[in-house]
Amino acid sequence: MKTIGILGGMGPLASADLYQKITRNTCASKDQEHLHILIDSNPAIPDRTGFLLSGGEDPLPELLRTLHRLEQAGAELILLPCNTAHFFYPQLQKAASVRILNMLEETANYLAAQMPGEVFGVLSTDGTLQTGIIARYLDAHGLAHCYPDQTQPLVMQFIYEGIKKNNFSLGTAGLMQAAAELRQKGATKFILGCTELSVAASIYPFSNDFVDPLLILARRAIQEAGGKVIP
Amino acid sequence: MKTIGILGGMGPLASADLYQKITRNTCASKDQEHLHILIDSNPAIPDRTGFLLSGGEDPLPELLRTLHRLEQAGAELILLPCNTAHFFYPQLQKAASVRILNMLEETANYLAAQMPGEVFGVLSTDGTLQTGIIARYLDAHGLAHCYPDQTQPLVMQFIYEGIKKNNFSLGTAGLMQAAAELRQKGATKFILGCTELSVAASIYPFSNDFVDPLLILARRAIQEAGGKVIP
Repeated sequence: MKTIGILGGMGPLASADLYQKITRNTCASKDQEHLHILIDSNPAIPDRTGFLLSGGEDPLPELLRTLHRLEQAGAELILLPCNTAHFFYPQLQKAASVRILNMLEETANYLAAQMPGEVFGVLSTDGTLQTGIIARYLDAHGLAHCYPDQTQPLVMQFIYEGIKKNNFSLGTAGLMQAAAELRQKGATKFILGCTELSVAASIYPFSNDFVDPLLILARRAIQEAGGKVIP
Repeated sequence: MKTIGILGGMGPLASADLYQKITRNTCASKDQEHLHILIDSNPAIPDRTGFLLSGGEDPLPELLRTLHRLEQAGAELILLPCNTAHFFYPQLQKAASVRILNMLEETANYLAAQMPGEVFGVLSTDGTLQTGIIARYLDAHGLAHCYPDQTQPLVMQFIYEGIKKNNFSLGTAGLMQAAAELRQKGATKFILGCTELSVAASIYPFSNDFVDPLLILARRAIQEAGGKVIP
């Protein structure tokens, strides 16, 4: 069994959600049958979208420090529960001595196998959207995708003013408006392309049309670490 | 700000719940305002009740190894999200170079200040019950308490066959029978004296008569680490 390391804090609720998803998706009848998981939930990692679009501080140095702490603590398989942080995936994997499971690659693989022919509307941060972080993985698998235009600010508001501020009274109306715009553009499925939206999916009742990359990552991580996934 | 270390895996859902509770109770408007948290979720720690009552493997050596890994990784305040594991608190604190926040001491402090005069019915594992782990802290604060007799097996079933097996279809009927027995014995409040029951309180709707030590620990940990607790 491999020890899993979660490079976390982006945001912390998403890391907690991943930890919970791994645990709840592991076939285990007692504590001792679960996987060994190390989490470094590091608030010193600067905002990813802030760096990519507004000249904010570069998150890479702190991402690398956290990665190396996890390796030193014994992590043998690293998870990165932040879609936007996958912009730095190539540099992180290059610097790592162990494998970093690529959430977006795993998601695209899963969608190509399980949902071919669908059109994927992507709900994500401005940073993920404008740098095409998710788009490149969907393109590589020949998956059709589209993005919000006029409703994108509502997605950002939901992420930054809602989940990241522990503000659950905001509700999902803004997010559903974005989904409606995507549906008008032809989307038949929606990708929760920001881990704060994955957190929201654990709180609010979303339909099966919403695909959660964090859940896909959790289930793949269990397999990669040598555990057994519940059906 | 102090780095928090969670000595976890007892069970892993309880550790995830504590991580989530700390995050949701921290006054923060963005990722960067949260606390630095390290978690070592270690499935190699043997069952606590199994050791205390049935001659199972001693958890102390593995608890100490996990503690020292957290210290080495930079943890400055240790949390132990398992009531039964507090049996080993004295040995762990003695071996630690940093403070281990005592969940049961913090809970008894809180109850003495906030709920004086109540009678506390304790829902816990056989290990916690029979070795008086929680009782000694309640006694030290002059708090009245009582325990289930004929319904204690239902509490154990809920913990071991329900939460620890990811079996959420079991429902809370058994636990509520135990609460009813406690009420007959004079209990006016109930202590969720096993962290698996704290997990259950995050899933099922429990009334305000149920006191959650894991939530008390989460809020005290934020303060001790130098963070600000939401009101």
